[in-house]
Amino acid sequence: MLSCTRIGCCPSPLPDSPHIMLSPAVLAAFRQVLGEDRVFADDATCALYAHDETPRHCTPEAVLFPDSHAAVVELVRVACAHRVALTLRGAGSGNVGGAVPSPGSVVVSFECMQRVLEFDPDNRLIVVEAGVVTAEVDRIAREAGLFYPPDPGSSLYSQIGGNLAMNAAGPRAVKYGTTRDYVLGLRAVTGSGDEIRTGCRTTKGVTGLDLTRLLVGSEGTLALITEATLKLLPAPEAVASLRLCYADNRSALDAVGRVMRQPVMPRALEFMDQRAIEAIRPSGAASDLPAGTRALLMVEADGTADGLAQQTDALIAALEGAGCLEIRRAFDAAEIARLWLARKSLSHAIKQFAPLKINEDVVVPVTQLAGFVDFVDALAHTQRLPIVSFGHAGNGNLHVNLMVHPDDAEEMARTRASLDAIMDRVLALGGTLSGEHGIGTEKRRFLDREIDPPTLALMRAIKQQFDPQGLLNPGKLFPDPTH
Amino acid sequence: MLSCTRIGCCPSPLPDSPHIMLSPAVLAAFRQVLGEDRVFADDATCALYAHDETPRHCTPEAVLFPDSHAAVVELVRVACAHRVALTLRGAGSGNVGGAVPSPGSVVVSFECMQRVLEFDPDNRLIVVEAGVVTAEVDRIAREAGLFYPPDPGSSLYSQIGGNLAMNAAGPRAVKYGTTRDYVLGLRAVTGSGDEIRTGCRTTKGVTGLDLTRLLVGSEGTLALITEATLKLLPAPEAVASLRLCYADNRSALDAVGRVMRQPVMPRALEFMDQRAIEAIRPSGAASDLPAGTRALLMVEADGTADGLAQQTDALIAALEGAGCLEIRRAFDAAEIARLWLARKSLSHAIKQFAPLKINEDVVVPVTQLAGFVDFVDALAHTQRLPIVSFGHAGNGNLHVNLMVHPDDAEEMARTRASLDAIMDRVLALGGTLSGEHGIGTEKRRFLDREIDPPTLALMRAIKQQFDPQGLLNPGKLFPDPTH
Repeated sequence: MLSCTRIGCCPSPLPDSPHIMLSPAVLAAFRQVLGEDRVFADDATCALYAHDETPRHCTPEAVLFPDSHAAVVELVRVACAHRVALTLRGAGSGNVGGAVPSPGSVVVSFECMQRVLEFDPDNRLIVVEAGVVTAEVDRIAREAGLFYPPDPGSSLYSQIGGNLAMNAAGPRAVKYGTTRDYVLGLRAVTGSGDEIRTGCRTTKGVTGLDLTRLLVGSEGTLALITEATLKLLPAPEAVASLRLCYADNRSALDAVGRVMRQPVMPRALEFMDQRAIEAIRPSGAASDLPAGTRALLMVEADGTADGLAQQTDALIAALEGAGCLEIRRAFDAAEIARLWLARKSLSHAIKQFAPLKINEDVVVPVTQLAGFVDFVDALAHTQRLPIVSFGHAGNGNLHVNLMVHPDDAEEMARTRASLDAIMDRVLALGGTLSGEHGIGTEKRRFLDREIDPPTLALMRAIKQQFDPQGLLNPGKLFPDPTH
Repeated sequence: MLSCTRIGCCPSPLPDSPHIMLSPAVLAAFRQVLGEDRVFADDATCALYAHDETPRHCTPEAVLFPDSHAAVVELVRVACAHRVALTLRGAGSGNVGGAVPSPGSVVVSFECMQRVLEFDPDNRLIVVEAGVVTAEVDRIAREAGLFYPPDPGSSLYSQIGGNLAMNAAGPRAVKYGTTRDYVLGLRAVTGSGDEIRTGCRTTKGVTGLDLTRLLVGSEGTLALITEATLKLLPAPEAVASLRLCYADNRSALDAVGRVMRQPVMPRALEFMDQRAIEAIRPSGAASDLPAGTRALLMVEADGTADGLAQQTDALIAALEGAGCLEIRRAFDAAEIARLWLARKSLSHAIKQFAPLKINEDVVVPVTQLAGFVDFVDALAHTQRLPIVSFGHAGNGNLHVNLMVHPDDAEEMARTRASLDAIMDRVLALGGTLSGEHGIGTEKRRFLDREIDPPTLALMRAIKQQFDPQGLLNPGKLFPDPTH
C-alpha cells in the first residue's frame, strides 16, 4: 500500500523507484538472515516508519532492525538478490525527506545498532555503531574531558549514522565545522553488498581516495554506514553567552559581519528576525526584550576560564554599534539556558503561523546576509506569506521558514514561486542550496541550478559504482532524470 | 627517450602506462591550442621536469605551460584525442614520485597559472589558480588580518594545486588540520576533458556528493585542478615557541601524550630523535642543547597576546616531567626563529648520513608513538641502517628517514625489508601509510596492505569515471594491477 502525500511544492512526489513490491518470499528471506524478531511488516510498525520531519509520508513494505554490521551485509545481499529498494533511517529527524520511504521500499532502521565499540580518550577518538545517538557520543566524550563538536538541533535523538549521511551541523559549526570534520573513518556496506572500510584512526591520513568524505553527506545513496570512527576535541573549560537586541535586521546582520572580520571566533553566532521574535512572544520567552527589538543575536564563546571575559569583550566591541539596543552576558549554566530559551523554543513556536513549515536552510556569503534577508522580507510581503528567518549567521546559513497551508492550492502556488525565487537569489549571491539539511526529496528539483551537467553526471556515475541496481534511497538527492 | 631510475625499493619503477610515444602531429596539436611558446619538447626543458624530491626520474616527452583554465580544457581534449598520458606538476616538491613523469607522458606544469582571481577578506576566502605558491596565499591573507593555516615544509615554493592533489599539511595540522579542511570549492578538468565545479563559496554546504574532498588527495589521478576557493581564518595575534630537551625518546613522546590529554591545543608539536639531533650538530644548530639531550620537542602556541602566557604555562605543565632536561620559551620572532633553527635545518642535514633519503611519513596513534620509535630504533640496529625519526608528533605523524646508498644492492635489500617491516608495524598499531606525502609511485606497493579489495575496487571504479582512458598520472597512487 502506497500513500505518498503531495505537499505541492515538489513536482516529483513519487520517487523514481523501479523496484518490485515485496513478496512473502522476500520477507521470508529477510527473516532468514536477520531473525524473525528483526523484520516487521505489520501496519502499525510500517506506519511508524513512514515519516520524517517533513509532511511527506510513504508507508514502507517492511521495517528491518539489523543489530550488527554483519546483519546489514546479509540484508543488503537479500535486497540485491530480490531487487528491493532500501530506505535508510536514523532517528527520522531530517528536514528534507531523506528518511521518508521510497515507494515499495523496505526501511532499514539502525536503532538496534547503538554500541560504543571503542572509546580511546588518549587518542581522542570513539568508534560507534551508526545508531548511537549524537548526544550520547558527546556525553561519553565529556566524561574524559573531551567533547564531540557537531550539535545539530536534534542531537538529543538524532543518530550518528543520519548525521553522517546528511553532514549534520548546528550552531557550533561557525567555530568547529560540521560532522564531516569529525569523521576519521567509516565501515559501510555498498548497494552491491560489498563491505568497505574507509579512512583511518589518526588525525592525518592520505592513503588512497577520500571515500570517507564522499560517503559523508551522500544521504545514504552510496552505502549503508554501519560504524564510524569519530574525532573528539578537548572540552573547553568554560562557555559564555551573549544575547543582543537590535532595532532591525540590518543592524544585527551588520554586527555579524563585524564579528567575522575580527579574530575572536565565537562558537555560535545565531540570528533571529522580527517574525521569529514575534513567534516566541506568546510563550513568554521574549518578555524581557527591550521595546523596539526587531532582531536578535545569540552569541557564544568558549575557551579557558581566565580568557573568556577577554573574548566576550572583543566580541561585544564588534557587536555593539548602530541599532544595538541591549547586550546581556551570561557565564553560568542557568543564565545561559535562560538566554537560549528564546532561540530553542523557536522551531516549535513558529508553527502558530500556519500548519506547514517549509524550512529552507540556504547559505549566502556573510556579507550578503542583510541584503538577502531584505529580499526575503520583500518576497514575504509581495507573496503574502509569513516567512520566518533565523539561523547560523556566522556561517551565512539561514533557516528561511515559509509558513503555509498545504490545502490552499493558491497559497501553495505562491509558495512554489517564492521557493523558486529564494533559490535563484541564493545562487545569484554566491550561496548554496543547503548548509546542513541536505537535498533529500525536497530540494532535488533545484539541484541542477547549482550543479552543472558534467559535475552532476560524475555524481551519478559514482552512485552507479556504489549502487549499480539503484537500491539505496532511490528518489533522494539526485534530480529526477525524467524531469 | 626514457630514463627511469630504479631505486631498488619499489618493484614497479616503470608505471603501467599503456600510451603511445609523442608524434610530431600530437606536438603540433598541443601547439595549436596552447600557442607555440607554451609547448616545450627540447631536451633541456624536458630534463628540468624529469624529477621531484625523490631520486626517481623520467624524462617527459614534452612540457606544457597552460595559462588558464580554458587552456587546460583544450590540452586535455588533445590528450584525449591522441591518448597521451599527462603528468600533473606543481613545484615538484613532492616526496613520493607524484610529479615524476610517467613514461611517454607529457608534463602539465601550472606555473603560468598564478593569478589570484578573487580575495574576499570579509567572507574569509580567496580564489586562486592552481599554480599560486602556498606562501603567497598566506601572505595575501595576512595583509587583511587573516591567514592560510596549512604550512607544508615546502610552502615557500610549493603550489596550491600540488598541495590540493596531495592534501599537504605541516606542523600546524595538529591544531588547524590539513589542506582538505581549507578548500571550499574547486574548478577542475576531468580526464575526459569535462569541466567541473565542485563545492561552494561558503563555510557550510551539503549540496550533492562531496567531489571537492574526493579530488583533494587524489594525486592528480581524477582531474586537473585549475582553480580553488580556499577558506581563511583570522590570524592569531601572537605566537610563542617552546624548545624542550629530553633524556630519551620515550620521555619526549610520553610528554607528547600528556599534551594531547589536556585542553590547550598547541599549534605545533614536533619531535626529533637522537639521530636527528646528531644530524644538526655539525651546523652548530644543536650547540646550546644541554648535555645528555637525546630527544627534542618543538612546541608552538598561538592566540591572543594576553592569553598566550597562560597557554604556554599549561603546555609546560604537561611537557615537563621525567626525563625533561631543559625548557626554553620564546615570544618574539627572532627568538622563535633561533629555536626553530634546529628543526628547519634537519631535512637537509640528515643527508650527511647517506646519499639517498627514503622519507616515510607514516602515522600511528599518539599513544603508540614511543613504542613505534623503539621499534624503528631496533630495526635500524638489526638492519644496520641509519634511520632518523622526526615529525609532527601531535598527529602521530612521523617522518622515518632511511638513509641509504642506492648503489649498494645488499644494503638496498635490507632497506626493502626494513620498509616492509615498518609499514606492517604501522598498520598493526592502527596507523596509516601516509600522513601528508601521499602514495605516488613510492608507496603504491603497500596500498593493498591498508585498503581492502572491495574498497580499492571502488577507488578504481571512481578513477574510471573521471578518467576512462587512464591518461591522468598513470602509475600513481593505485597499486600496479599486474602485481
